[in-house]
Amino acid sequence: MLSFECDYTEGAHEKILARLLETNLEQLPGYGSDHYCQQAKEKIRRACSCPEAEIFFLVGGTQTNDVVIDSLLRTYEGVVAAKTGHINAHESGAIEHSGHKVLVLPEHQGKIDAGELESMLVDFWDDESYEHMVFPGMVYISHPTEYGTLYSKEELKSLSEVCRKYHLPFYMDGARLGYGLMSSETDVTLSDIAKYCDVFYIGGTKVGALCGEAVVFTKQNMPAHFLTIVKQHGALLAKGRVLGVQFDTLFTDDLYFDISRHAIEMADYMKEGLRKKGVKFYLESPTNQQFVILENSAMKELQAKVEFSYWEKLDEDHTVVRFATSWATKKDNIDRLLELF
Amino acid sequence: MLSFECDYTEGAHEKILARLLETNLEQLPGYGSDHYCQQAKEKIRRACSCPEAEIFFLVGGTQTNDVVIDSLLRTYEGVVAAKTGHINAHESGAIEHSGHKVLVLPEHQGKIDAGELESMLVDFWDDESYEHMVFPGMVYISHPTEYGTLYSKEELKSLSEVCRKYHLPFYMDGARLGYGLMSSETDVTLSDIAKYCDVFYIGGTKVGALCGEAVVFTKQNMPAHFLTIVKQHGALLAKGRVLGVQFDTLFTDDLYFDISRHAIEMADYMKEGLRKKGVKFYLESPTNQQFVILENSAMKELQAKVEFSYWEKLDEDHTVVRFATSWATKKDNIDRLLELF
Amino acid sequence: MLSFECDYTEGAHEKILARLLETNLEQLPGYGSDHYCQQAKEKIRRACSCPEAEIFFLVGGTQTNDVVIDSLLRTYEGVVAAKTGHINAHESGAIEHSGHKVLVLPEHQGKIDAGELESMLVDFWDDESYEHMVFPGMVYISHPTEYGTLYSKEELKSLSEVCRKYHLPFYMDGARLGYGLMSSETDVTLSDIAKYCDVFYIGGTKVGALCGEAVVFTKQNMPAHFLTIVKQHGALLAKGRVLGVQFDTLFTDDLYFDISRHAIEMADYMKEGLRKKGVKFYLESPTNQQFVILENSAMKELQAKVEFSYWEKLDEDHTVVRFATSWATKKDNIDRLLELF
Amino acid sequence: MLSFECDYTEGAHEKILARLLETNLEQLPGYGSDHYCQQAKEKIRRACSCPEAEIFFLVGGTQTNDVVIDSLLRTYEGVVAAKTGHINAHESGAIEHSGHKVLVLPEHQGKIDAGELESMLVDFWDDESYEHMVFPGMVYISHPTEYGTLYSKEELKSLSEVCRKYHLPFYMDGARLGYGLMSSETDVTLSDIAKYCDVFYIGGTKVGALCGEAVVFTKQNMPAHFLTIVKQHGALLAKGRVLGVQFDTLFTDDLYFDISRHAIEMADYMKEGLRKKGVKFYLESPTNQQFVILENSAMKELQAKVEFSYWEKLDEDHTVVRFATSWATKKDNIDRLLELF
Repeated sequence: MLSFECDYTEGAHEKILARLLETNLEQLPGYGSDHYCQQAKEKIRRACSCPEAEIFFLVGGTQTNDVVIDSLLRTYEGVVAAKTGHINAHESGAIEHSGHKVLVLPEHQGKIDAGELESMLVDFWDDESYEHMVFPGMVYISHPTEYGTLYSKEELKSLSEVCRKYHLPFYMDGARLGYGLMSSETDVTLSDIAKYCDVFYIGGTKVGALCGEAVVFTKQNMPAHFLTIVKQHGALLAKGRVLGVQFDTLFTDDLYFDISRHAIEMADYMKEGLRKKGVKFYLESPTNQQFVILENSAMKELQAKVEFSYWEKLDEDHTVVRFATSWATKKDNIDRLLELF
Repeated sequence: MLSFECDYTEGAHEKILARLLETNLEQLPGYGSDHYCQQAKEKIRRACSCPEAEIFFLVGGTQTNDVVIDSLLRTYEGVVAAKTGHINAHESGAIEHSGHKVLVLPEHQGKIDAGELESMLVDFWDDESYEHMVFPGMVYISHPTEYGTLYSKEELKSLSEVCRKYHLPFYMDGARLGYGLMSSETDVTLSDIAKYCDVFYIGGTKVGALCGEAVVFTKQNMPAHFLTIVKQHGALLAKGRVLGVQFDTLFTDDLYFDISRHAIEMADYMKEGLRKKGVKFYLESPTNQQFVILENSAMKELQAKVEFSYWEKLDEDHTVVRFATSWATKKDNIDRLLELF
Repeated sequence: MLSFECDYTEGAHEKILARLLETNLEQLPGYGSDHYCQQAKEKIRRACSCPEAEIFFLVGGTQTNDVVIDSLLRTYEGVVAAKTGHINAHESGAIEHSGHKVLVLPEHQGKIDAGELESMLVDFWDDESYEHMVFPGMVYISHPTEYGTLYSKEELKSLSEVCRKYHLPFYMDGARLGYGLMSSETDVTLSDIAKYCDVFYIGGTKVGALCGEAVVFTKQNMPAHFLTIVKQHGALLAKGRVLGVQFDTLFTDDLYFDISRHAIEMADYMKEGLRKKGVKFYLESPTNQQFVILENSAMKELQAKVEFSYWEKLDEDHTVVRFATSWATKKDNIDRLLELF
Repeated sequence: MLSFECDYTEGAHEKILARLLETNLEQLPGYGSDHYCQQAKEKIRRACSCPEAEIFFLVGGTQTNDVVIDSLLRTYEGVVAAKTGHINAHESGAIEHSGHKVLVLPEHQGKIDAGELESMLVDFWDDESYEHMVFPGMVYISHPTEYGTLYSKEELKSLSEVCRKYHLPFYMDGARLGYGLMSSETDVTLSDIAKYCDVFYIGGTKVGALCGEAVVFTKQNMPAHFLTIVKQHGALLAKGRVLGVQFDTLFTDDLYFDISRHAIEMADYMKEGLRKKGVKFYLESPTNQQFVILENSAMKELQAKVEFSYWEKLDEDHTVVRFATSWATKKDNIDRLLELF
């Protein structure tokens, strides 16, 4: 059966598997101290134009959010995020398990607004009883968001300015970062992200790796004893090489960017095809996730032939569903999908 | 200076202090095992018409919410509450410190709606990715709410029915319960509360005690080893007698109800007086907290002569402020307050 | 029945109750911002010869340990304590509930040894895998210990020096501090404690108060936003006056010291009397807790006539039990106790 | 340089990599719901002779311990373990981060004793103040232990009996389980383990996999909503196939057992060789970790030529070090090692 269910239905890019095979019997030290991890970090620093960046490799996205956020917050602080932010909606309370509240801002197609953020902060500090509340301790965004949307450079700059004014670390969840960077509609580069964010992660799991996320601290602000904090959260991989080799490969000869561009091309091709068929979009997504509106009866017919994600009920008769492309999407399959409309 | 800042500006009702003095040199066992605690529990059971109720005395409100909620939830569950619920807004993240998320419902003058609650639960169980979310594990309401409003018996019944349908414990924060029960506009009795709620607490701190809240489990549902859970949260008072004697006194000869009624009479008198002076109310509160709208300039003048609580900014020129009466409010002071308008 | 079960069987010293009564109807602000709290802090600063001390009043001992320790440790750090330390043995895991490990040292009649502490720290930093372990982040002692024993000034100085060398806050649990200070066998003053410890608490619950512990940060090291941390732990008392008035009374005209001295005199009298009767002591305690060895049959007879605490099994035929005096102990009752031997 | 530093210096067994490559472009659902995971589980059930076993794949050992223990304990319970147990000594406080205390028993070459366990439980329930302590809620052992030692079938049976008597889940950390099962000195089979333990895990990371541990609940006792608990701990792998394919390969044609046997043969060969050279052993280990005593000067010379693990200081002049073999150890390298003595 055809599947556009998500961007992690295949294994890893073949070059990654080839490198894992080539390096397999090298005896290497554990916990990320091997030379592949070092190499990968150096390549990422260059890709970010951020020579002072401190980098740590983790296994998955929720884990990364939990570890980074818990390591940066004081016990009485919470993390500000959009209502639809992954940490608020789809991480089974991982942030709360580590003792922190998610302080919710309204979402605008998945994004938060710098003005609304500043209002929240002004209100907090103006409130006579702020000492009885959770202190805003950092700001979380996802880019692309859960709706596939992107912040503009100007929007990132504005958020960053508010964060600095209030001394809040600004953190970007880049689970699908490659797809954001290669969008034809973005003006944001990896260097911009390194400049505006205090910490972000470059997603591997959804962009060609078996698993793995690269956390980048851009301002020499990696918390002391971060490795121990990682271990305490059960997030330290014994064979760190598995992450090192993968990211080393992804950041050799621009592989990460090339495979991300492929996903965007496939998304654009699918979008154009669906539009021609008269399919209505729930919103304009410039990345690899496309949200379309289907009549319920049409949706049911389609489900017999292709896998996609249920997103939300629009009204009694219509449903929003998601089709995702990825580094591994085949053009033929999109043609087959389009034939079904 | 006059003060209507809150309902805990005085110490305790004189009968309570008298009893503490009388019983002071009795040698009693610790941790709530003394006979005053037993007596007080028996009187509360009678007042609730709930002979099977299990009761535990704690010191303060946030503490009580934290202990009760953590004791009833499984690790992967959260507590449903109004956006304005005390546990969501004004407990410095105590619930999250114990690892649980507050799942937020819209508030209607501080109250949640049974229909909206059921929609949230239906949506949760319908969501294909519910396993990646926080499970709703119990429902929290405050009565009176943070806005002084009250649930009707019908509303409590509806909420209770939704909770039972979804097997969720229904918990009432009764920090100001006395003032709710004695409101002239309520149709809810203590027995109704014991019937509809699975657990609630009877607030002492704001209703005549030095400190103390009586947690009532109404369905033989006190979690096993509750005393140990209390201890683990740093909430077990060594001299449990201090709580036992206070609640024994409050539930002797209807003292709790009588002093609550006094606060309501004072609130009604204040409300009537303010209305005559043309003061506008932010909402209709049937209990001891009254929220009025003041012009900012008038508010500043008033602040020089009387203490009250800032609540929130209404618009550029107006502010919502709160005047609270209590068991200890003197009628003379209300007359003096009214003269200032 | 006679009771020597513990030092919290009575209510509060009569002067405390009198002051609560006198001040009862003053309208005071909440959460410790009233003038009685300020006065009490000033008097404690003077008693400690530590004008820069920052002081906070909490309700109970386990609560105080939990809040202080959680506020001073980073997430990856643990607290070093004797195996028999209250936080390790008798607080139902409150420290772990806040996410921290208790790192255990051997106990010597309840005390830890500076040499053994330094060895533990040397071993930790020498261990090649220390990053996979819990970092020692502070040191906890109780004084008097759970066995009634006391550190000498020289021992406190040595522990303090090790702590400073390793940049670890040195914390003293003074649940029974008065009884330690008034022991005829101590060379340690309150000023010494303020000098050697970074934080300690002066116990009220077991020394004449209804409840209450005064936390003293001696080196301008109270963690930022400590009130919020206290609130987050459910430990912030609304009517802070209850604690302020009590400690103000205890530190007026040396009441705290006088009533502590009484307990010591009663303990010495009891000790002498028991010794004359040939009773064997489990260890030499210079404070208000006395541990004696009873034959099991004798113990059972005695239990019918007097309450005391079971401590531990010594061998098949003998048991260690504890008799405690307090600020409220009557000499007559000791005479009646002695007649039973 | 030669390395016997640990059993995770190489990547994965070649058959695993081959299978990852073969299955790489299959589109599969996430989070462990793919057919490779199902197949692997079925094979493990057969290998354990436990058709009703419920199995879940996780990524690493500390993570597995944290998730399993937190999922089985109530909030007020702790886990019993040897002082040297991995969860007590080398997991950076992961168990405490989830709110639970490790209750320590003495270790005997890494093992706990059923008699001492029962004594601890008897003492707990006999203690008059047990409600103020952490309840023993489950029992943890590692097999092989951190010292390479093994429980006999009789010892497992005894521990299991004590656990059942006290209704405590009995949990085995099998990070190196293969090496225990293939030891020439064991009488314990995988079926025995499934019989005596309530839950255990089969280690992949140290036995031929890139990463991965298979948790086996043997008594239909997998906690409800375990997937959500896993997610909440940041431990749910998006591409569950990575674990499924690996364990499917390991449990096809006895690969797991064969490669484990190889490590044991290599260890036996090394042991014999070292013994002939007159090297002294710290203890008799029947598995792949060998602990020998070196003079400090000899140790330093050796470190220039071969990597091994520092274990602990024996006395001023001698150190205990560890040499580990694994599924990937080459006999030639052992010969080269032996030449250095």
